[in-house]
Amino acid sequence: MATIEDELERARAAQLEELSSFLRIQSISTLSSQQAEMRNAAAWLVDKLQRAGFKNAEVLETGGHPLVFASFHVGDDAPTILMYGHYDVQPVDPLELWTTPPFEPKIRDQKLYARGASDDKGPVFLHILALETLIRRGELRVNVKLCIEGEEECGSTNLPTFLEKNAERLRADVLLISDTTMVGPMQPGICYGLRGLCALQVDLKTANSDLHSGLYGGAVPNALHAMVELLASLHHPDGRVAVDGFYDEVVDLTMDERAALAELPHDDEAYRKALGLTALFGEAGYTTIERSTARPTLEINGLYGGFQGEGTKTVIPHEAHAKITCRLVNQQTPATIQEKVKKHLLEHAPIGATLTVTLQDTGNPYLGSFDAPAVELAKKSYEHAYGVQPYMTRMGGSIPIVEVFHRVLNIPVVLMGFSLMTENFHAPNEHFSLENFDRGIRALTHFYREAATALK
Amino acid sequence: MATIEDELERARAAQLEELSSFLRIQSISTLSSQQAEMRNAAAWLVDKLQRAGFKNAEVLETGGHPLVFASFHVGDDAPTILMYGHYDVQPVDPLELWTTPPFEPKIRDQKLYARGASDDKGPVFLHILALETLIRRGELRVNVKLCIEGEEECGSTNLPTFLEKNAERLRADVLLISDTTMVGPMQPGICYGLRGLCALQVDLKTANSDLHSGLYGGAVPNALHAMVELLASLHHPDGRVAVDGFYDEVVDLTMDERAALAELPHDDEAYRKALGLTALFGEAGYTTIERSTARPTLEINGLYGGFQGEGTKTVIPHEAHAKITCRLVNQQTPATIQEKVKKHLLEHAPIGATLTVTLQDTGNPYLGSFDAPAVELAKKSYEHAYGVQPYMTRMGGSIPIVEVFHRVLNIPVVLMGFSLMTENFHAPNEHFSLENFDRGIRALTHFYREAATALK
Repeated sequence: MATIEDELERARAAQLEELSSFLRIQSISTLSSQQAEMRNAAAWLVDKLQRAGFKNAEVLETGGHPLVFASFHVGDDAPTILMYGHYDVQPVDPLELWTTPPFEPKIRDQKLYARGASDDKGPVFLHILALETLIRRGELRVNVKLCIEGEEECGSTNLPTFLEKNAERLRADVLLISDTTMVGPMQPGICYGLRGLCALQVDLKTANSDLHSGLYGGAVPNALHAMVELLASLHHPDGRVAVDGFYDEVVDLTMDERAALAELPHDDEAYRKALGLTALFGEAGYTTIERSTARPTLEINGLYGGFQGEGTKTVIPHEAHAKITCRLVNQQTPATIQEKVKKHLLEHAPIGATLTVTLQDTGNPYLGSFDAPAVELAKKSYEHAYGVQPYMTRMGGSIPIVEVFHRVLNIPVVLMGFSLMTENFHAPNEHFSLENFDRGIRALTHFYREAATALK
Repeated sequence: MATIEDELERARAAQLEELSSFLRIQSISTLSSQQAEMRNAAAWLVDKLQRAGFKNAEVLETGGHPLVFASFHVGDDAPTILMYGHYDVQPVDPLELWTTPPFEPKIRDQKLYARGASDDKGPVFLHILALETLIRRGELRVNVKLCIEGEEECGSTNLPTFLEKNAERLRADVLLISDTTMVGPMQPGICYGLRGLCALQVDLKTANSDLHSGLYGGAVPNALHAMVELLASLHHPDGRVAVDGFYDEVVDLTMDERAALAELPHDDEAYRKALGLTALFGEAGYTTIERSTARPTLEINGLYGGFQGEGTKTVIPHEAHAKITCRLVNQQTPATIQEKVKKHLLEHAPIGATLTVTLQDTGNPYLGSFDAPAVELAKKSYEHAYGVQPYMTRMGGSIPIVEVFHRVLNIPVVLMGFSLMTENFHAPNEHFSLENFDRGIRALTHFYREAATALK
């Protein structure tokens, strides 16, 4: 019997051609004109999964774009791995900035160019190839379930309901996702934490109407004075958020975590220069990476009131408006933080200011295992394919669906990405590195093959 | 010989008809279509002044709309009174809100309705009538000069240059102006102080572009955080301006002035309710009237940065903008205050913020005599016509040309108004009270007649 390596090498051209046929389908989920293409992409996946050995592969309706579900059962005693990915892609405009058309995949400089190559059709296809290889060789000894949705690029609207309704069908021991980025080329990373989010709108009023600054200036409250005083009260001078109890639910980083984050390739000075900053700034006592990925924040995203035109208008504004979001970590719950921020704002309302605080969007933070068996297996799998230890990372942004999976299924999540930050996902000339195509299949083959033992 | 009273009563209908003919001229200075009407109004004045006894009455060119100048010389030993007014009027739109057409004067309820009736053709005409009466009776024993411009409603663009060039021709012992308002019906007021103004634009930058609050939040400066911290530093909690040296050139109110301002009809609670405020606010230690007329202020007139749309945008804004104006009093010079505010802003720039402070409009404050002989004469003249003592007032707004007159000619200015705040100047249905028409002529006749003695 040929080795897996031999098999993969021989099959490479055909695999790339097969991925290209998947990439040719214009499955843009946000465009209502692409309904048929969405169906085509789902059907393509079911057909491919069946050919790969999944007897149970089907299109499931969700109320929006359909979802592809497939399973391979080896035995009730074996561990079960659930894989999540998505087959929908971002719109392609501006089309004129693409060197080759977005739905005509082309290889240049060891990169496969096409919309969806990096996000997320390419990575999804790596899982299918790895599983196909193991099934053909009879080496798959874990149960596998695949859940590939078609609405990730338009907010995963129907997925939370689907997860809740199908929790039993999706039951597994670990969730594996390849929809994040590596730290850099040949620098794989396992992301074990994502920040949550909550938003508030602050509307402040001081008078019935704007007032003439000559006739009234000095005698009446100014909505903008009140607003800047109020907003300035939200932070201590050292960058810490001044809202009472804001950090109550934050579990501090462990020594191991801080050590792992400190190993990430990062240069404060280069980072500062690249962003055009005269100085970095944020919560005292934490590194740049810790502050931007593992610590909660409170940011003013927008602020407006009074005259914004050219020149001068001698007006005392009677209204001011601000938009605030917080990034949350660990056990912080968006609703609790919203209430604490609202309480702070109302308690600090300056003389003469009447506030309306409106609670808006929320998303839970996610913090997975830093050293669970599945994480250890992922590390070994990366090492097997790349010859280096992966970094352990936390991401400052939010992927709300990860927390929903985590909460509904109550299982560890392993975020094992093969894309690079530089691969223009969501932009013209999206591409996927063939180096990560090759090493990705090998890493995933290793993960699925060794899971039977490692996750016992 | 008939008494002045008899004369005025007999002439009243003719005087009102004469004023109406003046009001029919559509002298809107901001509309280039009204050039001919501007000339007509100036010619009308010259003709009227000549008929009133002014041998020297002429139209003078200014580079913009012409100015009417007239003089009546009784002797080199007599005091000279310079009167300033304007014959141009505001635009009339929205026309549909006028009960009767703006240039077809109509009397209703003892009010004369027409554009310009209150601002400033009506008051200017009172001076001419008073002087005509005294000349005819041989009772004018002061030299009189009249300077009636046509650009007040479009910024008096050419007047400062005219004043500087014609300082000798305009030389006088006192400047008398009727272009302010009374305190209320039957409540005349002499305004002896006007606030000055200076403006600044603050542009603040922290990064090359807006940044994703997930990826960068907590690690980099936020332009809005920097701006609110910066702007909050401009005031002490008790409402005083915190800019170093801001009050240096402010001479505090005298006991007499405070007593006079305290006599003005004012009710804090009614004022608060009318403006829809939950509280009054401003510099500690001063009354509402003192704060809004006799104390300097610093107001944020506009503030903007980041996302202003509906909903949430998780952005760290890299730019923030603010507009600031100060109202100035006494010896405060706009340029000095601008520099002090700029210095404060630059010195208080938060970490990571780069500021650009742009100096904008300026206008000097004016503080005239509280008790000069001309002011005493004005008080007696009001008392003669209205039977009550006038209030002594300061105005919170700015009339820059008053300070220019004061500076160029270096003479006391008496602001003796006959209009009411409620007379819709600059708005539809402008009107002038016939009560103030009658009493105004009597007050001015008294002023000009008694000036020979009072101003010796």
